[in-house]
Amino acid sequence: MADYIPELGKADPNQLGICIYPLQGDRIQIGDYDKRFTIQSISKIISLCVAMEIFGAAKIFEKVEAEPSGEAFNSLVELDLNSNKPYNPLINSGAIAVAGMLIEEVSFHDMLRFARELCDDDEISLNRKVYESEMSTCSRNRAIAYLLESKDIINSDVEDALRFYTKMCSLDVTADSLANFANRLANDGVGNITGKRYLSSETVRIVKTLMLTCGMYDGSGTYAVEVGIPTKSGVGGGLLAVSDKRAGIGVFGPSLDPKGNSIAGCRLLKEIAGKLRLSLFYDTNLITADRIDYSLTEFAHRHDK
Amino acid sequence: MADYIPELGKADPNQLGICIYPLQGDRIQIGDYDKRFTIQSISKIISLCVAMEIFGAAKIFEKVEAEPSGEAFNSLVELDLNSNKPYNPLINSGAIAVAGMLIEEVSFHDMLRFARELCDDDEISLNRKVYESEMSTCSRNRAIAYLLESKDIINSDVEDALRFYTKMCSLDVTADSLANFANRLANDGVGNITGKRYLSSETVRIVKTLMLTCGMYDGSGTYAVEVGIPTKSGVGGGLLAVSDKRAGIGVFGPSLDPKGNSIAGCRLLKEIAGKLRLSLFYDTNLITADRIDYSLTEFAHRHDK
Amino acid sequence: MADYIPELGKADPNQLGICIYPLQGDRIQIGDYDKRFTIQSISKIISLCVAMEIFGAAKIFEKVEAEPSGEAFNSLVELDLNSNKPYNPLINSGAIAVAGMLIEEVSFHDMLRFARELCDDDEISLNRKVYESEMSTCSRNRAIAYLLESKDIINSDVEDALRFYTKMCSLDVTADSLANFANRLANDGVGNITGKRYLSSETVRIVKTLMLTCGMYDGSGTYAVEVGIPTKSGVGGGLLAVSDKRAGIGVFGPSLDPKGNSIAGCRLLKEIAGKLRLSLFYDTNLITADRIDYSLTEFAHRHDK
Amino acid sequence: MADYIPELGKADPNQLGICIYPLQGDRIQIGDYDKRFTIQSISKIISLCVAMEIFGAAKIFEKVEAEPSGEAFNSLVELDLNSNKPYNPLINSGAIAVAGMLIEEVSFHDMLRFARELCDDDEISLNRKVYESEMSTCSRNRAIAYLLESKDIINSDVEDALRFYTKMCSLDVTADSLANFANRLANDGVGNITGKRYLSSETVRIVKTLMLTCGMYDGSGTYAVEVGIPTKSGVGGGLLAVSDKRAGIGVFGPSLDPKGNSIAGCRLLKEIAGKLRLSLFYDTNLITADRIDYSLTEFAHRHDK
Repeated sequence: MADYIPELGKADPNQLGICIYPLQGDRIQIGDYDKRFTIQSISKIISLCVAMEIFGAAKIFEKVEAEPSGEAFNSLVELDLNSNKPYNPLINSGAIAVAGMLIEEVSFHDMLRFARELCDDDEISLNRKVYESEMSTCSRNRAIAYLLESKDIINSDVEDALRFYTKMCSLDVTADSLANFANRLANDGVGNITGKRYLSSETVRIVKTLMLTCGMYDGSGTYAVEVGIPTKSGVGGGLLAVSDKRAGIGVFGPSLDPKGNSIAGCRLLKEIAGKLRLSLFYDTNLITADRIDYSLTEFAHRHDK
Repeated sequence: MADYIPELGKADPNQLGICIYPLQGDRIQIGDYDKRFTIQSISKIISLCVAMEIFGAAKIFEKVEAEPSGEAFNSLVELDLNSNKPYNPLINSGAIAVAGMLIEEVSFHDMLRFARELCDDDEISLNRKVYESEMSTCSRNRAIAYLLESKDIINSDVEDALRFYTKMCSLDVTADSLANFANRLANDGVGNITGKRYLSSETVRIVKTLMLTCGMYDGSGTYAVEVGIPTKSGVGGGLLAVSDKRAGIGVFGPSLDPKGNSIAGCRLLKEIAGKLRLSLFYDTNLITADRIDYSLTEFAHRHDK
Repeated sequence: MADYIPELGKADPNQLGICIYPLQGDRIQIGDYDKRFTIQSISKIISLCVAMEIFGAAKIFEKVEAEPSGEAFNSLVELDLNSNKPYNPLINSGAIAVAGMLIEEVSFHDMLRFARELCDDDEISLNRKVYESEMSTCSRNRAIAYLLESKDIINSDVEDALRFYTKMCSLDVTADSLANFANRLANDGVGNITGKRYLSSETVRIVKTLMLTCGMYDGSGTYAVEVGIPTKSGVGGGLLAVSDKRAGIGVFGPSLDPKGNSIAGCRLLKEIAGKLRLSLFYDTNLITADRIDYSLTEFAHRHDK
Repeated sequence: MADYIPELGKADPNQLGICIYPLQGDRIQIGDYDKRFTIQSISKIISLCVAMEIFGAAKIFEKVEAEPSGEAFNSLVELDLNSNKPYNPLINSGAIAVAGMLIEEVSFHDMLRFARELCDDDEISLNRKVYESEMSTCSRNRAIAYLLESKDIINSDVEDALRFYTKMCSLDVTADSLANFANRLANDGVGNITGKRYLSSETVRIVKTLMLTCGMYDGSGTYAVEVGIPTKSGVGGGLLAVSDKRAGIGVFGPSLDPKGNSIAGCRLLKEIAGKLRLSLFYDTNLITADRIDYSLTEFAHRHDK
């Protein structure tokens, strides 16, 4: 677990839950699907969505590149050495830069409202304990933020941007909430029952592309080969996976690999993706409960042992 | 143009050609679609396909990672600093590592035969002038190759591997040949008229994933956002683009941007992808001649001026 | 000039002054030798001297290495990438780490007193304008300081350490004050008239060694070859040069080369060192006024034109 | 021991020998002072001396910088990333560049003659076994050499330069031979009995400066602080130490620390330097047998246990 944030170190490493919400067919919920955990880096997707809607792609990519970095999520090297812009909005430096833009237009309260709406979950709220734990151990993010200021990437108040960023990371969600959000991303930004558009087609397309190329930190390329579903991980143990035109998937499993991705969660998604041929480059069959049920139950069973 | 290879510096920068070969519907050919040029880095895709068929993914990824590098195509830094393996098989270091594996199993003559078959073009042959020009200026690739030997990534003869790699780069192809190859990649490795399988489903899936995440050097992420079609570029001016389940595309335009990608070719693909919504994350409409014709003709017209 | 600190950008680039204070013989003063300017990085020597006296070498080298970095003075890369400690106490990261140690034992007021005593100059005081100008543009140093906190190198209050460090940089000195300080370093830490010991022999030896290997940022090695006198530069235009067992030298010339060293000052020291064979590895003749006068007058004359 | 060169892995790690050859007073010889071992990187000093005499400093520093690198001796990173020139002539890349210059003017046979003369040792000869062992495992040096060619630093035949460089590393010397060479460097390039000048004053000054700033790889700065004597190490276990104006010192002790420096040799020099105050920045007392004998005998005694 992410024991560099003391409060996160307390989670039970054996938890595992998944929710699959297909565009057509029934919702599938297994294990700890309704357990609350902090969203952490998956909040970068919410922030990016909102920033895309407010500023548009062009303005964002003036501040942040769209390139995978080949470096760890919290690296300063790539920022200082190779570039005057963060590599992409899904690593810390890029997300803090986006936070610096957002705080000039929206409040954290606005963001909380967006998060609840996008995830269709009114119980999303700030986990104060985690937030305070993170703020007291965020020297590296603070270093990144001031480096961004020194490079004119952040022009707003650095401490405000950092607090905003850290609050967004400290939202309590469930695998269920993430599946709701992912479902709408899979459906071009539109609620698949109501038909309501939450995000523009362009926003959704760009966000999914970045999730595929940069969503799993410096393991993104390997994950794309092995799983092939746009996914964003968080060190709280969450995974937001968008099986485009088929289903939204939320996973919770707090044991992390060295790159910061959920071990059981990634293994589970790899297994499902393999069995159901969910890679972007396979066919486009629907995901339905009967195709999925067996493997999941079996996986959870194996995971317990 | 790639003037570090003297022979490539002689191309006419105003040339532009494209061939689109849809899975359904008529082949579209415009401009210099049948002009011969050297395949350069696009040969990395042919070599990777053959290596996947011979060794399987597991053995290849013991020698080479599958991660975008965030560095220029011919960097030694990433190899020496961050990793004991090349970042991926589509940058020089990774492709030279693959060449080191291949020379133990196949001859260049075999590879020429595969290239002709995959591209459905019997006139593909070695461009001796380019080959000799490259061999006389390949110190950096030679340095990479010996560094790979020092890291036990290459265990075969280094000079042989380098000659093999450089010969593969010096094959003369056309936009037409590339479209044929891309068509089969778009069709899961199967010829769309004959129904003959050329490559396994797994090979094709992995190759397309790597093209998307790593195909355009350190511009891959931005290209994925802007165009969203798995594509591999070569400094000879070629582009191999796979619009999955819809069409294979070959482009030729020898003026290069600083990252080594065809300027007119990328602009053309971006325009087509935007108009026809070809990004992986848009809909899956067929590409047909009548949807494409106008924009291409118009583009070529604008390009001439 | 160092125009990234607005207040420093206002200096007259044509100023040049030098004071040579031999262990034996008369003091030599030419040009703007009594002009006040901010000490900037030369304060790193004063801080290191005091820290050596308080903590001893062993404790300091637990926090900071003693290696030349091969990188620019304000680099974060070397710190993040190659090492968990700053490379040496004479680059910003190392000096900020030393400041973090000092603030637990001494006040800025104490340091001001030490500075006045070491430099035998009671008029040394804080330049408020420069201090405030620097504090308002110190994002990069702040980033470095928080990165040090994240690596457990700074355990005291980061903002306090940063203010302390910046105040030390903002002390107003003259070429004369620096020559006094350098004279004592050249005389093993002892006042050469009074015989009073200001610094221990070990402190002085280590500080002179570090000045030789790391005193001129990433130009230290070349300077050692060309001049061969332990020297520390500051972006205020100052140079503190210790011709061991012979003389202390202070120089002021505010035009800087890209590495942050005084252009005229370095050229002047190179010329003197060449003519008088002052390199560490030449003979140990005394420096006396009659051996020096001509060249200096001549140099200043040439510089004016 | 340097087990990456199989032949070097066979040395007896308990060997230790030292020869101190003062400018005045008797030669001191203890332990394995007359044991043959390969000179390895210490040959970089011989090559640099010869190159300085032939080409002069200006021409050499067009090809190679004079800066400590902050990186391991065989790094490619610094070369590729930060600079178009090797950092200094005492790391592999810089020495291979110097070899590329030398082979246009002198033969290896000439160099062998110079080595014998500078070291006053007619029995210095090529160790064929070590040379062949190194040539068969020198992929990294070969990579460095071709990278230098790609950057136009080497314009002569790369394989010839590599062979020349490796032959120079494979010369068999003794602690005694090194002390002879060091004695002349300590005496401004002049034989201290014969009065014959072997090297120009400028060559000797620059070589000693580089030994101090860059002679111990990426441990040079710490060694300068702890010992303070210009020294060059070799992975054969040798140390060439120049106590300027006092003595030449040769040491042999084949157990190496991770940076490639002789463990017992460095400890021994540190102890002698501490006791006799040999740092450049201490006094300039003569080194005589009676001041040294006791500590050495005692050290060797302790080392045996």
